[in-house]
Amino acid sequence: MQILVFNGGSSSLSFTVFATAGQDQATPVLTGKAHRVGVTGQEASFLEFRCHGQAHRHEVAMASHGQAAIEALRRIVEQGVQVDWIGHRFVHGGTLFTAATQVDDATMRRLQACVALAPLHNPIALEVIREARRVYPGVPQYVTFDSAFHSSLPPAACTYALPPRLAQRFGFRRYGFHGLSYAYVTGAAARHLAVPREQLNLVACHLGTGGSSVAAIAAGRSVDTSMGYSPLPGLVMSTRSGDLDPMLALYLMTAHGYHPDAVTDLLNRESGLLGLSAFSSDLRDITARVVAGDPEACLAFDMYVHRLRGYVGAYAVVLGRLDALVFTDDIGVRHPLVRERVASGLSWCGIRVDPALNQAVTGAGIDDIGVAGAPVRVLVVPTQEELVICLDGLRLLAAQAG
Amino acid sequence: MQILVFNGGSSSLSFTVFATAGQDQATPVLTGKAHRVGVTGQEASFLEFRCHGQAHRHEVAMASHGQAAIEALRRIVEQGVQVDWIGHRFVHGGTLFTAATQVDDATMRRLQACVALAPLHNPIALEVIREARRVYPGVPQYVTFDSAFHSSLPPAACTYALPPRLAQRFGFRRYGFHGLSYAYVTGAAARHLAVPREQLNLVACHLGTGGSSVAAIAAGRSVDTSMGYSPLPGLVMSTRSGDLDPMLALYLMTAHGYHPDAVTDLLNRESGLLGLSAFSSDLRDITARVVAGDPEACLAFDMYVHRLRGYVGAYAVVLGRLDALVFTDDIGVRHPLVRERVASGLSWCGIRVDPALNQAVTGAGIDDIGVAGAPVRVLVVPTQEELVICLDGLRLLAAQAG
Repeated sequence: MQILVFNGGSSSLSFTVFATAGQDQATPVLTGKAHRVGVTGQEASFLEFRCHGQAHRHEVAMASHGQAAIEALRRIVEQGVQVDWIGHRFVHGGTLFTAATQVDDATMRRLQACVALAPLHNPIALEVIREARRVYPGVPQYVTFDSAFHSSLPPAACTYALPPRLAQRFGFRRYGFHGLSYAYVTGAAARHLAVPREQLNLVACHLGTGGSSVAAIAAGRSVDTSMGYSPLPGLVMSTRSGDLDPMLALYLMTAHGYHPDAVTDLLNRESGLLGLSAFSSDLRDITARVVAGDPEACLAFDMYVHRLRGYVGAYAVVLGRLDALVFTDDIGVRHPLVRERVASGLSWCGIRVDPALNQAVTGAGIDDIGVAGAPVRVLVVPTQEELVICLDGLRLLAAQAG
Repeated sequence: MQILVFNGGSSSLSFTVFATAGQDQATPVLTGKAHRVGVTGQEASFLEFRCHGQAHRHEVAMASHGQAAIEALRRIVEQGVQVDWIGHRFVHGGTLFTAATQVDDATMRRLQACVALAPLHNPIALEVIREARRVYPGVPQYVTFDSAFHSSLPPAACTYALPPRLAQRFGFRRYGFHGLSYAYVTGAAARHLAVPREQLNLVACHLGTGGSSVAAIAAGRSVDTSMGYSPLPGLVMSTRSGDLDPMLALYLMTAHGYHPDAVTDLLNRESGLLGLSAFSSDLRDITARVVAGDPEACLAFDMYVHRLRGYVGAYAVVLGRLDALVFTDDIGVRHPLVRERVASGLSWCGIRVDPALNQAVTGAGIDDIGVAGAPVRVLVVPTQEELVICLDGLRLLAAQAG
């Protein structure tokens, strides 16, 4: 059984074909990524993939994720790679989806109804699903949801302090995101620490180049997370403000004539690291200038760390007992300075990072960068969302068969 | 020197005349409070005060804080109490005021410019100042600011992750509130613990019947706080939502046609405990039903505690080292169940409440309810905002004289 998995980012589309064996074994046969999808700029968009031990790279125009999917599907067909089952990541399933679901026309209508919940992310997946159904009409497809891992949030964590009739009418609740990543790192940390998943307490930081969040994981299940109804709140992100006094948004409209759409754009696309620094949404660029002492860069970096530390503390209290602090995704794995600063001064709650181990992280596997003997481990875990999507598909298939 | 201090709440007006001696001694000569100001309902508004050892109570119509001030001033004059200097609490001084300021016509214009920053609170103080100037034209007056204590917030804590040009243009920053109360409890905790104020690290929870907030106090100065640009964000309050995904507010407008003013009212007046419970904004009513097992009341109470615990953890991490966790204001002093639940499971960071001491709190003075020998003390400190306003006046006078 070979499963093709699509995972779209805001300007990229990853695709992997896994050869599976049994319920929990999956080996990549073909891995690829379309870069700079829908981005206008000096550099061209390109698609790269690796298959049969060979690397390929194609500069090709991809103005949309639909076009990127067409290009990816063409290469997979050209390579003669068998595809039996296609899985997609869907960011926001709202209350309509809390588990992996096979795609049919009824599912497509329900997915369409979720578009407004994550206008930056959900349309990407829909476009890709449509192209995959066109190219592989006979191959069954399924979707998995980034919000599903957080369906275990207890009421005190997922409810907003609003009248319940509004929550019921509009589906207002904390959904939370990056669930595929949290599911992966929870399993990986459990194996690495040799602690049963059902007993594992983690604060996990998914720090991406676009979006970032933190999750409190108690007994292997999500009990709190920093994103909310939308992927806006929580941490300082590349272009998203994260947590913000809602009165600021309202004041821009009532006192200064802003349109709600302009405020939405401001908070989602013009804020965060990009807004603060006025030169880059990329933490690598920011840290390069931090070293040079640039004041805007220093403030942006300090805010990034300050916000994240607050969540680590809040979730440590929510959990009461912590097995490990986990860093994952691009920034979590590749930025020793972020890990160093987030963990500094936390020895009183059992967290101590070994500076040499922190610098030596390669991202090739799981690294434990905690000081030997410290009661709370500090793990750097490269995430594998595609693998989780693949294994979710195997579970769905087994459930259908059983 | 006798100083009359006014401190207006949303539906009350406290007034106290202090006899002062030197720079830091003040004894109340007359203390009073107007209740149910501007409230329409079955119970009448009334004014009570104590002077020369006698208690007085008058049922009198007070449709506004201006009328309450007129009634209060009439009694003070009738009692023949000398007034040399009049101080007022002003909630939100924006960037225009960071310290106590004498009132003159120019100050009045600048105060007027701050009204939009706290539309529920600032107009109250302005009305009272106007009446006090009319009744005591020859007596100098001054204002102190709830936001002033937080002017020490470091940039990483007071900046929003927005483009700096917006912050500059509109004054967007975290101001924070309840500063008079935090100033008082910081001094009181320092004396009680015999720790120099400049070395004192506190997480202080100001839990009021209307608004509530938390502050991280390092070396006696505010370094973070849960309220923000406005008094909306942070904890679950009586009718305010506290922290909320700003996209919820925007979604109500873009997808459901809400007017920004309706969203402002929803978040400030119809949410929080009142919105959740649908029956009361008063935590006493909620806890009474928690005991009876009412599910809406239990959820509201759980959310109140969950949000507060998160801030305690976040600020413990911000501070790194904690001398004491402090509870103050009405709910902080009178609700042992809140203190018990907030502090539960925190022994790993040195916080352990003694159940018997917690139940025995009277509010007559400072109580230390921590288990003997625990490294972090847990203090219950009845706040005295009026005293801080009075002492601020003495300092202002000394500065003017010096």
